[in-house]
Amino acid sequence: MEKIDVEALFLGPKSENRKFFKETLDFLMDEHIHWRRNFHPEDEPVINLNQQQEKSFEETLDRTSNALLELSSRLKFSSMPWFSPRYLGHMNSDTLMAANLAYMAAILYNPNNCAYEGSPATTALEIEVGKQFAGMMGYDPQKAWGHITADGTIANYEGLWVARNLKSIPLAVKQARPEMVEGIDDWHLLNLPPGRILELVSKVKEAGALEAVREQSVRGMGMEKGRLGKLLVPQSKHYSWTKAVDVLGIGQENVEYVRVKDNYRMDVRHLKECIDRLVAEKTPILGVVAVVGTTEEGAVDEVHEIVRLREKYEKKGVSFYLHVDAAYGGYARTLFLDENNLFMGFNGLRKTLHEHGVVHKEVEWPSQDVYEAFRAMPQADSITIDPHKMGYIPYTAGGIVMKDRRVLDLISYFAAYVFEKSGDNPMLLGSYIMEGSKAGATAAAVWTAHRVLPLNVTGYGRIIGRSVEGAARFYYSLLSTGVLDADGRKFRVVPLTRPDFNIVDFAFNEVGNASLKKMDEVNQKVYDRCSYKSGPVYSDSWITSKTSLSSGDYGDAPRAFVAKLGIPAAEWDRVKSVYVLRCCVLTPYLTRGATYTEYWSNFMNTMRKTLEQVVKVP
Amino acid sequence: MEKIDVEALFLGPKSENRKFFKETLDFLMDEHIHWRRNFHPEDEPVINLNQQQEKSFEETLDRTSNALLELSSRLKFSSMPWFSPRYLGHMNSDTLMAANLAYMAAILYNPNNCAYEGSPATTALEIEVGKQFAGMMGYDPQKAWGHITADGTIANYEGLWVARNLKSIPLAVKQARPEMVEGIDDWHLLNLPPGRILELVSKVKEAGALEAVREQSVRGMGMEKGRLGKLLVPQSKHYSWTKAVDVLGIGQENVEYVRVKDNYRMDVRHLKECIDRLVAEKTPILGVVAVVGTTEEGAVDEVHEIVRLREKYEKKGVSFYLHVDAAYGGYARTLFLDENNLFMGFNGLRKTLHEHGVVHKEVEWPSQDVYEAFRAMPQADSITIDPHKMGYIPYTAGGIVMKDRRVLDLISYFAAYVFEKSGDNPMLLGSYIMEGSKAGATAAAVWTAHRVLPLNVTGYGRIIGRSVEGAARFYYSLLSTGVLDADGRKFRVVPLTRPDFNIVDFAFNEVGNASLKKMDEVNQKVYDRCSYKSGPVYSDSWITSKTSLSSGDYGDAPRAFVAKLGIPAAEWDRVKSVYVLRCCVLTPYLTRGATYTEYWSNFMNTMRKTLEQVVKVP
Repeated sequence: MEKIDVEALFLGPKSENRKFFKETLDFLMDEHIHWRRNFHPEDEPVINLNQQQEKSFEETLDRTSNALLELSSRLKFSSMPWFSPRYLGHMNSDTLMAANLAYMAAILYNPNNCAYEGSPATTALEIEVGKQFAGMMGYDPQKAWGHITADGTIANYEGLWVARNLKSIPLAVKQARPEMVEGIDDWHLLNLPPGRILELVSKVKEAGALEAVREQSVRGMGMEKGRLGKLLVPQSKHYSWTKAVDVLGIGQENVEYVRVKDNYRMDVRHLKECIDRLVAEKTPILGVVAVVGTTEEGAVDEVHEIVRLREKYEKKGVSFYLHVDAAYGGYARTLFLDENNLFMGFNGLRKTLHEHGVVHKEVEWPSQDVYEAFRAMPQADSITIDPHKMGYIPYTAGGIVMKDRRVLDLISYFAAYVFEKSGDNPMLLGSYIMEGSKAGATAAAVWTAHRVLPLNVTGYGRIIGRSVEGAARFYYSLLSTGVLDADGRKFRVVPLTRPDFNIVDFAFNEVGNASLKKMDEVNQKVYDRCSYKSGPVYSDSWITSKTSLSSGDYGDAPRAFVAKLGIPAAEWDRVKSVYVLRCCVLTPYLTRGATYTEYWSNFMNTMRKTLEQVVKVP
Repeated sequence: MEKIDVEALFLGPKSENRKFFKETLDFLMDEHIHWRRNFHPEDEPVINLNQQQEKSFEETLDRTSNALLELSSRLKFSSMPWFSPRYLGHMNSDTLMAANLAYMAAILYNPNNCAYEGSPATTALEIEVGKQFAGMMGYDPQKAWGHITADGTIANYEGLWVARNLKSIPLAVKQARPEMVEGIDDWHLLNLPPGRILELVSKVKEAGALEAVREQSVRGMGMEKGRLGKLLVPQSKHYSWTKAVDVLGIGQENVEYVRVKDNYRMDVRHLKECIDRLVAEKTPILGVVAVVGTTEEGAVDEVHEIVRLREKYEKKGVSFYLHVDAAYGGYARTLFLDENNLFMGFNGLRKTLHEHGVVHKEVEWPSQDVYEAFRAMPQADSITIDPHKMGYIPYTAGGIVMKDRRVLDLISYFAAYVFEKSGDNPMLLGSYIMEGSKAGATAAAVWTAHRVLPLNVTGYGRIIGRSVEGAARFYYSLLSTGVLDADGRKFRVVPLTRPDFNIVDFAFNEVGNASLKKMDEVNQKVYDRCSYKSGPVYSDSWITSKTSLSSGDYGDAPRAFVAKLGIPAAEWDRVKSVYVLRCCVLTPYLTRGATYTEYWSNFMNTMRKTLEQVVKVP
């Protein structure tokens, strides 16, 4: 296995790789400068030295310079120091030099991947990245369809757009070409498995009836209040799903939230109950969303169990679209792929991770459930996956990949006058996706990063392994801490749950305190001192984020956690909400060895001091 | 009036400003490098010199370097040379140094404007830009709401999202709080003017019934097939509108296309006919979209006439939402604003433009209609405006601005666990807009450009004036060309229409040819030789784009144009489609003087040679 040195991939917390970074940037800029100069060398410059020496010219340069210096000051004054291992807040860390430099190089060529004509260089890169997404998710890259999106929210919208339009096809066929679905009643038409619907679309297309059918589908007729049934999403969902059902005309009325267990994974037994109830009511299920890497807890839904459930129900004539929201966790699938991009067996995987030091043995990751969940992902119909999260790409780069590219017939539109009218030319991205103009520079950044880092355990796996390991170590350290002494007062610290991935949530409580409100106040004060709330964070010793777990969103999932902190069950039943500190451990530096020890001890000191300050303030 | 030197704003077609560009970039990179180093100077580097000298470290750097060099080669091989005045294709040209440098500086700080916590520096910049959009459009910045979007398509979706949710409110009030709309029948509820609906929302909010009403609106219940009526868009619309009605669950069935006149502006008489017919049928009008700067012709719809029409209908109890799609033309409004950002009178405007050489007198721009259209824009309810088009900002930066920020109640969502629950904190952008994660670097780029260039005639007006002037000169030159001689064969060249803005469409026809098909073939062959179709365009002498005007999209609007080219009316009636070359003149260098003469003569030579090649090929 070729050895990629993670430390050589980033500019570094102390700008350790500044020499390489600056020299490479300089060269890329010169490349562009001379590219311009070599285009029709016979053309005269439009600006000559004389003009450049005029007062107004210099004044205008000054304006640019001053504006940029002001920007730089503002950026330095209050930006988040993601690059440092002291930053354990949101899902951020340093980003790859390859991606940053690629972005900077490409931005000067200013490609627009909406149409090939605006981006002959970078559209091809995006198509390639789409295929890479497919490979990473276990789809067949020749049959799948993937592309970069503005962000994970837009990717989720696009997944739901496909699900909604697809679900509406069978009834549309009944309207436009009833003979093609003869003998199938509405209930069964609303319950055709996604693959079957796509076969039907193919037949409709062969029969020359695609347009007639689309006209009768949601695309043509609009949504019809609840006709397509309910969308089932776990309570732990990202709030983009709430927005999505509004935007797509589905309505909040038509979403049901599936409970999570106390490990914050979707409770598949409750999913089954929901399905049974809906089926009994003859309400169809538009789709189910599973989350791989919840944004608040890093929990990984048991995709394999959901897939199994769908298989079982399909035998009973009930089916639904399955989307996996792996905006956060998607790239972690690289950890499971060997150097030939094959999904490893459970034992082989652990062995590989340990032998190559990707995740050290004592960390015991992944659990069997997490392993099975990742393995089952290619059974889903579509997957959201964000390069700007675990791809270590700068904002914004979301992504989506769909199992079967035939879904494009449900969402594509051709503008006669902008594009060639062409049946199947994915180079005209704007015709096939939700967005229009899109930065080719983003594709350049993602493509270059993927070029440097294979999408398997030898490449991205190396960085993400460190992230997973850092989170696990942080979790173990918290577990073994027990009680902290702050100016004579004692605080218990308890992590929320063993991380499936790389987020560690936890809370402090003063030993003996039984009030949830008081406990929340302590943690809130810690957050206020260790976040932007304290003002610009440049002098903070440690930076975190936080979240609230309330019964409105999570049911009784947090009950056992607050109990461990010494809060009586009755107090939870009364308050029904708990405030926790939330550390996304994306930094690749908190692994075995001196750095972890140094930063953990930093962290403990900071916590102790912070708690001392907190208890002093009335 | 302070003099801004347009030539000092861009890197330049020959990289004329390379010294300034590179020095400034270098300084900005050093600023960032030292910002990292100064964060907790006591922390040890995570990478030491020893490690940097290891073989695997160097190999990893090599991987990054090689990937970037391959990217650079690909970019140089086939990217479009927007920067050159030889490029007259899509809506592109060189982009502002200020914007490119700001983007590059900000990308290393990697802010995410989704939540303030991820972007303490750049969220504030985006809020400021939103207010600037409002000012530029003539809205009251204190009452309006604007922000950057991923692109114009997403901005159009967001405008329609607001329109749709707003339109559904009165009937929702009837469901949830019937007493608040007592005595108003459904027809009138569906025809309340947008301002009246917002007043109703305020009252509902005061009564503590906002959630109950929203639950009964489209947001809560989903779309109900055609209930909200029809969306009226001009035939000249961007295809994002077709996508929008699908995405938002409205359905193609519920769009009507308003005819355009032979100047490609919406035919407001036909709009009136459509409205009358719909009102007679008791079909409500969800909204009307006007286009300021059609993407194919640069036509400016007569917004003032549409506004007048709405006023008239409101007296008869009929109203609709009005969105202006000024993705393309929006920034041109800066040409109408004096240095105090006040909209100038018609005569004063022309005088100012001439006196300061922003648009020279002989160009005769703007026409009275175009002037009135821009003046009326603040009467619209929302406006799409793309910085990555006439803002000379790199991709992607779209934008939207809404007249009345109270619309936020219709589209906002708060994630309890991500954000503070706060009634009115626009710093939490992700809660108020369609997108989630969004690049703070984009906001930095737009903000910095606006800092350098005031959003009035002294700033952006100077660049856009040149663009408008270049297009007008190109148009006049084509008009006065008459007939070209290509190897003894004579070709007439005719521009489509006098440009309202900065696009010139035109076509060649061999003198004596009466076949539309043959004429189209000639123009298609010209395009094939002057575009990416000829292969990488680096050695092309001139680069253009093209469009097709068919009766399916444009009715009979092109009839007079083809007649001027010598095509009989019967031929148009038979073929009903014409292929034209399309030049977006965004380059700021085709103004009065030597450069225009040089490039026009280049162009004529290229055309002559191209036609010679074209006629030689069978």
